[in-house]
Amino acid sequence: MNKHGKIITFGEVIMRLNPPLKLKMQQAQQLDFTFGGTEFNVGASLANFGHEVTHVTALSTDFVGDAALRFVKSMGVNPDHVARNEHPLGQYFLEEGMGMRPGQVAYNRLHGAFANLNPAVYDWDMILQGADIFHWTGITPGISENALVALKEALAVAKEKKVQITFDPTYRSNLWQYGQDGQEVLKDLAGQSHILLGSVSEINKLIDTDYPKTEEGFKLAATELLKKMPNIKKVFGKVRADKSATSHAISGHAFNGEYLYEDTITITDIVDRIGTGDAFAAGVIHGLLTQDDAFALKFGLAACAIKHTIPRDINLAKANEIEEIMNGNLKGRLKR
Amino acid sequence: MNKHGKIITFGEVIMRLNPPLKLKMQQAQQLDFTFGGTEFNVGASLANFGHEVTHVTALSTDFVGDAALRFVKSMGVNPDHVARNEHPLGQYFLEEGMGMRPGQVAYNRLHGAFANLNPAVYDWDMILQGADIFHWTGITPGISENALVALKEALAVAKEKKVQITFDPTYRSNLWQYGQDGQEVLKDLAGQSHILLGSVSEINKLIDTDYPKTEEGFKLAATELLKKMPNIKKVFGKVRADKSATSHAISGHAFNGEYLYEDTITITDIVDRIGTGDAFAAGVIHGLLTQDDAFALKFGLAACAIKHTIPRDINLAKANEIEEIMNGNLKGRLKR
Amino acid sequence: MNKHGKIITFGEVIMRLNPPLKLKMQQAQQLDFTFGGTEFNVGASLANFGHEVTHVTALSTDFVGDAALRFVKSMGVNPDHVARNEHPLGQYFLEEGMGMRPGQVAYNRLHGAFANLNPAVYDWDMILQGADIFHWTGITPGISENALVALKEALAVAKEKKVQITFDPTYRSNLWQYGQDGQEVLKDLAGQSHILLGSVSEINKLIDTDYPKTEEGFKLAATELLKKMPNIKKVFGKVRADKSATSHAISGHAFNGEYLYEDTITITDIVDRIGTGDAFAAGVIHGLLTQDDAFALKFGLAACAIKHTIPRDINLAKANEIEEIMNGNLKGRLKR
Amino acid sequence: MNKHGKIITFGEVIMRLNPPLKLKMQQAQQLDFTFGGTEFNVGASLANFGHEVTHVTALSTDFVGDAALRFVKSMGVNPDHVARNEHPLGQYFLEEGMGMRPGQVAYNRLHGAFANLNPAVYDWDMILQGADIFHWTGITPGISENALVALKEALAVAKEKKVQITFDPTYRSNLWQYGQDGQEVLKDLAGQSHILLGSVSEINKLIDTDYPKTEEGFKLAATELLKKMPNIKKVFGKVRADKSATSHAISGHAFNGEYLYEDTITITDIVDRIGTGDAFAAGVIHGLLTQDDAFALKFGLAACAIKHTIPRDINLAKANEIEEIMNGNLKGRLKR
Amino acid sequence: MNKHGKIITFGEVIMRLNPPLKLKMQQAQQLDFTFGGTEFNVGASLANFGHEVTHVTALSTDFVGDAALRFVKSMGVNPDHVARNEHPLGQYFLEEGMGMRPGQVAYNRLHGAFANLNPAVYDWDMILQGADIFHWTGITPGISENALVALKEALAVAKEKKVQITFDPTYRSNLWQYGQDGQEVLKDLAGQSHILLGSVSEINKLIDTDYPKTEEGFKLAATELLKKMPNIKKVFGKVRADKSATSHAISGHAFNGEYLYEDTITITDIVDRIGTGDAFAAGVIHGLLTQDDAFALKFGLAACAIKHTIPRDINLAKANEIEEIMNGNLKGRLKR
Amino acid sequence: MNKHGKIITFGEVIMRLNPPLKLKMQQAQQLDFTFGGTEFNVGASLANFGHEVTHVTALSTDFVGDAALRFVKSMGVNPDHVARNEHPLGQYFLEEGMGMRPGQVAYNRLHGAFANLNPAVYDWDMILQGADIFHWTGITPGISENALVALKEALAVAKEKKVQITFDPTYRSNLWQYGQDGQEVLKDLAGQSHILLGSVSEINKLIDTDYPKTEEGFKLAATELLKKMPNIKKVFGKVRADKSATSHAISGHAFNGEYLYEDTITITDIVDRIGTGDAFAAGVIHGLLTQDDAFALKFGLAACAIKHTIPRDINLAKANEIEEIMNGNLKGRLKR
Repeated sequence: MNKHGKIITFGEVIMRLNPPLKLKMQQAQQLDFTFGGTEFNVGASLANFGHEVTHVTALSTDFVGDAALRFVKSMGVNPDHVARNEHPLGQYFLEEGMGMRPGQVAYNRLHGAFANLNPAVYDWDMILQGADIFHWTGITPGISENALVALKEALAVAKEKKVQITFDPTYRSNLWQYGQDGQEVLKDLAGQSHILLGSVSEINKLIDTDYPKTEEGFKLAATELLKKMPNIKKVFGKVRADKSATSHAISGHAFNGEYLYEDTITITDIVDRIGTGDAFAAGVIHGLLTQDDAFALKFGLAACAIKHTIPRDINLAKANEIEEIMNGNLKGRLKR
Repeated sequence: MNKHGKIITFGEVIMRLNPPLKLKMQQAQQLDFTFGGTEFNVGASLANFGHEVTHVTALSTDFVGDAALRFVKSMGVNPDHVARNEHPLGQYFLEEGMGMRPGQVAYNRLHGAFANLNPAVYDWDMILQGADIFHWTGITPGISENALVALKEALAVAKEKKVQITFDPTYRSNLWQYGQDGQEVLKDLAGQSHILLGSVSEINKLIDTDYPKTEEGFKLAATELLKKMPNIKKVFGKVRADKSATSHAISGHAFNGEYLYEDTITITDIVDRIGTGDAFAAGVIHGLLTQDDAFALKFGLAACAIKHTIPRDINLAKANEIEEIMNGNLKGRLKR
Repeated sequence: MNKHGKIITFGEVIMRLNPPLKLKMQQAQQLDFTFGGTEFNVGASLANFGHEVTHVTALSTDFVGDAALRFVKSMGVNPDHVARNEHPLGQYFLEEGMGMRPGQVAYNRLHGAFANLNPAVYDWDMILQGADIFHWTGITPGISENALVALKEALAVAKEKKVQITFDPTYRSNLWQYGQDGQEVLKDLAGQSHILLGSVSEINKLIDTDYPKTEEGFKLAATELLKKMPNIKKVFGKVRADKSATSHAISGHAFNGEYLYEDTITITDIVDRIGTGDAFAAGVIHGLLTQDDAFALKFGLAACAIKHTIPRDINLAKANEIEEIMNGNLKGRLKR
Repeated sequence: MNKHGKIITFGEVIMRLNPPLKLKMQQAQQLDFTFGGTEFNVGASLANFGHEVTHVTALSTDFVGDAALRFVKSMGVNPDHVARNEHPLGQYFLEEGMGMRPGQVAYNRLHGAFANLNPAVYDWDMILQGADIFHWTGITPGISENALVALKEALAVAKEKKVQITFDPTYRSNLWQYGQDGQEVLKDLAGQSHILLGSVSEINKLIDTDYPKTEEGFKLAATELLKKMPNIKKVFGKVRADKSATSHAISGHAFNGEYLYEDTITITDIVDRIGTGDAFAAGVIHGLLTQDDAFALKFGLAACAIKHTIPRDINLAKANEIEEIMNGNLKGRLKR
Repeated sequence: MNKHGKIITFGEVIMRLNPPLKLKMQQAQQLDFTFGGTEFNVGASLANFGHEVTHVTALSTDFVGDAALRFVKSMGVNPDHVARNEHPLGQYFLEEGMGMRPGQVAYNRLHGAFANLNPAVYDWDMILQGADIFHWTGITPGISENALVALKEALAVAKEKKVQITFDPTYRSNLWQYGQDGQEVLKDLAGQSHILLGSVSEINKLIDTDYPKTEEGFKLAATELLKKMPNIKKVFGKVRADKSATSHAISGHAFNGEYLYEDTITITDIVDRIGTGDAFAAGVIHGLLTQDDAFALKFGLAACAIKHTIPRDINLAKANEIEEIMNGNLKGRLKR
Repeated sequence: MNKHGKIITFGEVIMRLNPPLKLKMQQAQQLDFTFGGTEFNVGASLANFGHEVTHVTALSTDFVGDAALRFVKSMGVNPDHVARNEHPLGQYFLEEGMGMRPGQVAYNRLHGAFANLNPAVYDWDMILQGADIFHWTGITPGISENALVALKEALAVAKEKKVQITFDPTYRSNLWQYGQDGQEVLKDLAGQSHILLGSVSEINKLIDTDYPKTEEGFKLAATELLKKMPNIKKVFGKVRADKSATSHAISGHAFNGEYLYEDTITITDIVDRIGTGDAFAAGVIHGLLTQDDAFALKFGLAACAIKHTIPRDINLAKANEIEEIMNGNLKGRLKR
């Protein structure tokens, strides 16, 4: 297989546990479990598109970590830079929403194997050798000081090696419990990166502005961002007009000096909403590695859309299946 | 926890057995099972809101009854007045509907432990001591003479102790097989009660009228009811405009001398329709115990709405989750 | 297929509900369900051996009865004389034992469709036309007066048509609640039958004796039985030396004027103990229809043995698989 | 039960394997399995409506074939002409679609027991004795030369015995791998048949025309078909306006010299789309056997509609349930 | 129900997650989950025997904690002194052993809700009012300083109120990570307690001896213990001669000045080994509360034995079922 | 990780489908599915021990093949030489045995993707570059002419590159349907190989002898084999004294000029017997790559033993866990 690009992702591989069939946790006696984590989800989707992906992380040494490692391998992601330590694997519990009932998430990740990673074990020079893309998100530095230190080292080496840096600067207030000001850290790290996966609200946080969530607002915000953080060259965002837990509409826009827009896709019959942003990010990166910005936006939006119909955290749709969505084939007819 | 009120519910705890995943019974080899029963559903929901609830019933002495008893306890409902006898536990089988396919129910309850309860074992003086609410429905007296006798004793003691009596006078023609005229019995029992949970069709049956199922019809019917049965002071009803087995719209109205109306909530993505009326009843009672009639109607309607998204018989939504629905937050966004 | 004999069985088809994986009922949320019933189990096993079997019974008209009817058909048993009525299907709950933990059964059958059967609907002349065997057990007349009436009619017609009558006169004290003395009824019915499937304890009850459960006791008891009830020509019994819920040893003996003995088979790794007596009965009847008494005893014992390894109520082993057991092939090696 | 007609169906009984809960195959570790096959689906539905149905097929001799045979019996279909051979049972894997995600099917049937059937084992004179209908589809002759040979023999005997021949001439390009021109074979077989279940596209293929898929196109196509293939007397078709994998609208039309039309039924909350065409065919045949062409079209369309809500391949709705749909009762209210 | 005694247990309620059917974690996609915790297991079993039990603990405020709380209630244990905090619930993963394959456990409990409990929230004066027994184990103080502080307060109040203190001083080297010398702490806490549940190895650790694990060794060790720690009046221990993960033999001995011995029970067909020590402890405490030391030892041993056949952490056998085991009824025959 | 050796395995990756919980196929509605195949099982186990393993095979291009490919990756086996074609994936159905009930297997592999592999697609020069071991079995050449051709090419290249060739010459009479004399082919291929995994019966087939299955027989047979086929330098065999489907005893012997013997390990509580021979082969190869012949035999036997307790086809035990078995630790105690 022709592998278009070499991508390095860095972040927690986290166990997902959720009751089946829309049960509340207190009603269940079995939990479905799988693994995810925003950066890994991006990497796994890119591996699925045929790219060469290495995911850098830390797992527990126990049999829970064994299961996570097997999952990483199953995705065709290179596991050579997966560290192990004696702390338990991070996890989240999910009660899925339905109609007007909100889904709920409960995390247990702040004292886990990834939070306790040893930054010294990662040889970023070797890891980033020959890489096209290094991808990070705002989750990682929010987990622990160790994770932040490792991320900073990775970014420094990536800069040195002229690796393109893509990032999703999600700020989560329930992270950042180790004594750093998350907003400030993210500004600093964003300034060292090149392609932002986010929209008006993310930009506003990065540059302390208050642009409205409109087309005009996005243009102004992105323009100002590229001025203030000159390393950043492009912004790709999706806009969600959610109607209920199971029906949504999404559109996409981007700014690379020019404004690009991708029209709404309506999503019904949602199977799983987790990982749809990661599917967008992976789609955009795939587009950038194989074609151009317009294709990247369009492909990213279609990838995001179809992910809503795929269970669990990772987008398993193939590139050609996503291209069918791009081409407006939304009827979902049976293929014999 | 501050328990707002003390509520006594009396009725059958019935086993529910249904094939999973919309299978027809003849296609299945496993049945999901849980327990319910209209009065218990009301009590369990009220316990979940923080009230002190005692459920009075009779269970089988076998291991099926053990399972039912554990279920009662799991809901935080006081089991001290649960009797046991040698008859099998009542049950119902459910084939859930989907789209145009109707759901179907098959009962096996007329010779069970509750039908064969011994009225003499319940010390209603002790049970109703200090109670704020006694709740009954038209199911109980329809099951057996024994159940009717016990209910009458309970109502007599409740009157004596000035306990407020709430009731849902549902008439089911497949009950009442032991020789009583159900309609007449329900009129008698209704006349001893204070707050009706029901709407035009229930009122028409109680006072032999034929008011239409309209706003005006409800006002006239309720007015006449309160005149003819002066113990009854308030009526709370919901109106269902069902469109398919999985999408509905409900609105609420009440009459306490004044007319109150609560606007339509549209319900999509129905997970389980069983117990939605019980959720309404519990919501109204909670509202009455903690605030006023307007709040009771609004809270009851929202409780009814969210129950449609919760599997099995009992509304497990918390009061604050229901208040979010009351406040129009119907998008069901994921809570991290 | 060459169908060796035509057999009529009469009895309740009962739903079996049991928690999976050795859970106690109170720990479970799913129940495995299937159907059984001692006489049906015998008939289904005989159909599986290639005989033409008609099972006569009454099922509920609801969708639970539909499921039971489909199960009857699935066994290749002729369903043309299955009646339906408005009463719920009988059922039993089973908590399976394990090691020193006893299994437990809870019945709900005394007010069901079979208990309420209408004897007038069965045209025994047509049903028994050309039959080789009519098989009954002591369960049926214990369920209700109606069942007893129908059984008596069947026996009378069978006598008239010279159909061989096989029977298993099990007496269960938790049946017989409708006012008959079960022991006396069974004596009467036994006296009209020809081949007893039972051992010393069954014979003692039929002829009010107290023979010990030894080889000598069996010979004496059987001799006296054949003298006192001259219609009875043969007795086939198995002896169980059970050690725990999951390991047993069984041997067989018969009396047809002569004494026959079949040596012990040790059974380990028991999967399901329900229906092992029925497997013995079906095996004996198959042997009688196709070969001789010695073969019948040997085949019945082997059928009983292998049934312990087959889940649910019915022996699904084929005749050639049972013959392998008869021939001492107990190692259970994988067949590729 | 009064059996309205005697129907013979001939075709593969195929195992269906699909991951549960919309999982992709690569995500699953369990597969739901059942059996289907277009001709058997038609036969099973007709048996369910009370007709006497014999299905002619070939199954494997292994335990997989045993399971298929038990399934055939469970449907109340006569299994007396089911052959067995040493080849494995045909099967298909299904990944169900959801919203914009297409369902996918993967077949493994071209070297199976049915493909390798021995035409000599079927005694069509005996099989078709007294039959009202013989039903075939374009799948069967596409599987293998053997299957085609057997089908031709069946058609010849049916002609001789004046049995009405219904057919669904579906052409599948992934079949016909044994060296015949499928389109030509189907024309030949169609010319020997009487009632076509199909619409404009099927007619176009049979008579090499290119009529549009409109009302007018259907009239013209059907008129020309009946002229060119004078054995064909009637055409019954449904038109699907599918919107997504889970919501559809269907209407029906027929031509018997006159044009008949049946208005659109909208289908939401689709549970399973497999077998909906077979449900239509069975519905039409039932209508023809019991009433007239107009009823047949209406009943067929309603049967097709409700099948979308029933899991697995076969329409298990009863005739009276389908008549409720015909009468416009599409709300799916719970029946207690 | 006559509640024989009032017991207070204090310890973590921990979530148990294990792959079903002996799968390794890396092979599974579902986990069975339930709750346990050594002290809670003891309390729940005692509640099941009819005693009044209050369990003191801290749970998470999220929906995982809600599930745990519902579990506590389901056991009939008083939840009035269950605190909640913002930390995640502790948990353990279990890969069950089979034959020569060892079971494995992986914990995630050192940063959970219980580890982070606030000792100030427990009003031990109120909690221990009227209590007969306070039960603790060596797990609790090993989890965190907070847990140790709360335990010390409880012991002090129990002493003041003359509550009998039972304890199981299990030392786990993977706990005690917060800077205390576990062995020394346990000696101190043991010295304040009255009844030791343990055997030679536990005694050796408490008094720095090296007695052999023999009858004589036990007598000498227990004699010395009672001399050195004069508050301790009695020791109850079980001895396990395990042969494989699924077959064991256990015997019991006790010392109260006199030596008591209870002969071996052989256990085959082990379903679950977790919680068997807790079943012993609960059995002994029940025996002490209702009869005498000899009965307590015998009942505890039988309780321990039957627990091996019951899935999950808690002994659900009833007192009369355990008495059957005591009386040597180990055959596990089916009870109809 | 230090990878001790580089191993190439070649053979079919086959889907395994089996009913859960000892059900017969006809009783089940779900099948557990996974993947195996004797050569892949060996490779996956070796990858699990830390070796670098490449598996060469052909999978279907459909989503079933996607699932198989993901499985291959999940095992950490290099998938770079997995071909894909349009034929369906091979598979086998398994009914597991229990006690005296034999397990049964039904195959569907003779027309699958592997049978139809294109020998030209494998670049054996590249594949075998730097390899230490090439492993094959008698299954592969029995599947199809194409498979035989590819295997011969592989052996020729391996010879050229001086790669050690290990083999398990299992002869299955239900293979070899394409016109070759399997026994003769295997002799030829064996003569080109170096290390035989097999025992007396395999040797007898290779050299047309009839040595008894005794210690002496093995010595004589192996001596003669090494004389007649001088490329073969070593033989490693295990001897199974199976007692029932769930309890076995195995011992090992080897011959490398000298005779080696490894004493019996008794295996109770068998979870899965599939793949135990492959576990032995992988264990022996691991031993040879890391230590000496005596260790290889001992480690292989222990690997075989523990595999019986691990579900599905592949031995997932780690090297250190197997060494514990080697050291006689068979009690399976829980590891906390």
